[in-house]
Amino acid sequence: SSESERPPTKVQELHVYEINERDRGSPAYLRLSQKSLNSLGDLVPFSNKLYSGDLQKRIGITAGLCILIQHKPDMKGDRYEAIYSFYFGDYGQIAVQGSYLTYEDTYLAVTGGSGIFEGVYGQVKLQQIIFPFKLFYTFYLKGIKDLPEELLVKPVEPHPSVEPSPDAKACEAHATIAAFTD
Amino acid sequence: SSESERPPTKVQELHVYEINERDRGSPAYLRLSQKSLNSLGDLVPFSNKLYSGDLQKRIGITAGLCILIQHKPDMKGDRYEAIYSFYFGDYGQIAVQGSYLTYEDTYLAVTGGSGIFEGVYGQVKLQQIIFPFKLFYTFYLKGIKDLPEELLVKPVEPHPSVEPSPDAKACEAHATIAAFTD
Amino acid sequence: SSESERPPTKVQELHVYEINERDRGSPAYLRLSQKSLNSLGDLVPFSNKLYSGDLQKRIGITAGLCILIQHKPDMKGDRYEAIYSFYFGDYGQIAVQGSYLTYEDTYLAVTGGSGIFEGVYGQVKLQQIIFPFKLFYTFYLKGIKDLPEELLVKPVEPHPSVEPSPDAKACEAHATIAAFTD
Repeated sequence: SSESERPPTKVQELHVYEINERDRGSPAYLRLSQKSLNSLGDLVPFSNKLYSGDLQKRIGITAGLCILIQHKPDMKGDRYEAIYSFYFGDYGQIAVQGSYLTYEDTYLAVTGGSGIFEGVYGQVKLQQIIFPFKLFYTFYLKGIKDLPEELLVKPVEPHPSVEPSPDAKACEAHATIAAFTD
Repeated sequence: SSESERPPTKVQELHVYEINERDRGSPAYLRLSQKSLNSLGDLVPFSNKLYSGDLQKRIGITAGLCILIQHKPDMKGDRYEAIYSFYFGDYGQIAVQGSYLTYEDTYLAVTGGSGIFEGVYGQVKLQQIIFPFKLFYTFYLKGIKDLPEELLVKPVEPHPSVEPSPDAKACEAHATIAAFTD
Repeated sequence: SSESERPPTKVQELHVYEINERDRGSPAYLRLSQKSLNSLGDLVPFSNKLYSGDLQKRIGITAGLCILIQHKPDMKGDRYEAIYSFYFGDYGQIAVQGSYLTYEDTYLAVTGGSGIFEGVYGQVKLQQIIFPFKLFYTFYLKGIKDLPEELLVKPVEPHPSVEPSPDAKACEAHATIAAFTD
C-alpha cells in the first residue's frame, strides 16, 4: 500500500522440526559468566537435526550460537539471542537471527540464504515443544523461486509425542533429501 | 540508474538511543585471549536499554555479541565486529552486523527483521556519545511499510548530557511502547 | 519465472583473496570445549587481510567468528558455522553467514552490507587454497549499483603459490583502495 514497501510477492510457508537426539554433543553450555545462575556472558554453541514437517525425511542440521542475554526468574526461563543456519543438503541454507525465549514462541529474522534460498528474506516462527529437544518452525519466505515439493509437505501438528519416522531417523535413502546435511 | 539496482523505494529514518544504565550486568567482557591488553580472542556479550530518539519512551533492548578484532593503540581504542538485534516490543526486531569502533562513528548493515520490520534492509549509523554507555543510532530503512508515529519522533541532538525522561526510565505505561522489551 | 521471485536483476561477480599473513594474531582458537579433539564448544574469532582478485591491491580485512560445529574424522577436517564481514575501506562492508568446511568449497549467504554495499543480497563461493591461510571468494551480488572498476578486476586463478604483489603487501598508496581497512 505504501511506496516504501517491497513489490508484493508470494509468501511460501515451510515447516521443519529441529530435534536434539543427544548424539551430537549439543548444546555446549559454556558458563563463561562463571556464575551459578545462567547469566550474560554464557555462550551456547549448538547443532541439532532437522526433519521435514511431516517427519518423514531427514533434511539436515541446524548450526550456530545462542548468546544468553538474561535469566528471567518470573518466567522460569531465559532470553537468548540466537544466530544460526538451517542446512537443507544440496538445496542450500537459510540464515536467521533473533530471540529465543525458553518460555514463549518467538519470530526471528531470516537474514539470507544460499543455494535455492539465495536472496531469501522474511521471518520464521519458533515454537518450542519440549525444551530444549524438540522445536517446530514455520518459515514465511519471500524472494525465492517455488520450493521443491518434498519440502512443501503437510506438517504433523506440533505435540510433545511427535517423533521422526524410523526410516528418517535411520537416514535411509528414501527418507532423506538429496545429500542431506549431517 | 543501473539495472542491477533494486527498484527505488522510500528510505525511512529511525532514531534511537542505546543506554547502559549498569543494571543488566552488561557488557560481560570475556578475556578469553588471556592477554592483558584487549586482543583477538576476547568476546563481549551485551544487552542495553533502548529509548526513542526524543528520549520520551522506553522501547526495548539491544542484545548480541561484540567480537574484539584489534586493539588500536594509536586511536586509544578497539575495533569490534558487532552482531546484535534491536528489540521494539510488540513491533518486532531489527538485526544488524558490522564494525563497532570505540573511537569513530560507523555504519553497520541491517541484515533483517521480524514483526513490522519483516523484510527490512538498509544500514544504520552508530554514533558514540559516551563510551560505552550512550550511543545514538540513525537507521536508514527500506523495504517495509510506513513506521508507526510513535517511533518517528524528532530526535534530541546527541550530547553527553542527554538522559531519558524520568517517566521513560521508570517504564511508566504512558512512557513505553506497547509491550516494550525488557 | 514465478511470482514468488524477486524482480530480475543483474548479478555482479566480485573476486577477492583472503590471506593470513600471521601478523594479526589470527585465528584465536578458543578450546572452550576443553576437549583434545576440535569439538562443539570451541570458538574461533579471526581477522585476515583482503586483496583484490588480481592481487594488485590491498582492500581491507575480514573480521568475525567461526563456531566449531563438528569434527569430521572421515574428511580429516571440520565443519564451522562462520559469521563475518568483508571490509572494503571507504567503500563499505559485506556481511556473510554460512558453513566453512575445511575440506570442501561452500556457498555462504550474503546477509547485508553498508556503504556502496547497502541493500546487497546474494551468495558467495568460498574456495580454500591453503588451509587456513589462503582463501579465494567469488561474490554473486545483487541489489546494488555498478561496482567501481578497481574492484572488478580479472582475478588471478586460485593456486597455492599465489601471492599479493609486493606493493600491495607493503600497502603502498598506489596499491591500496581508498582508506583500506586495516
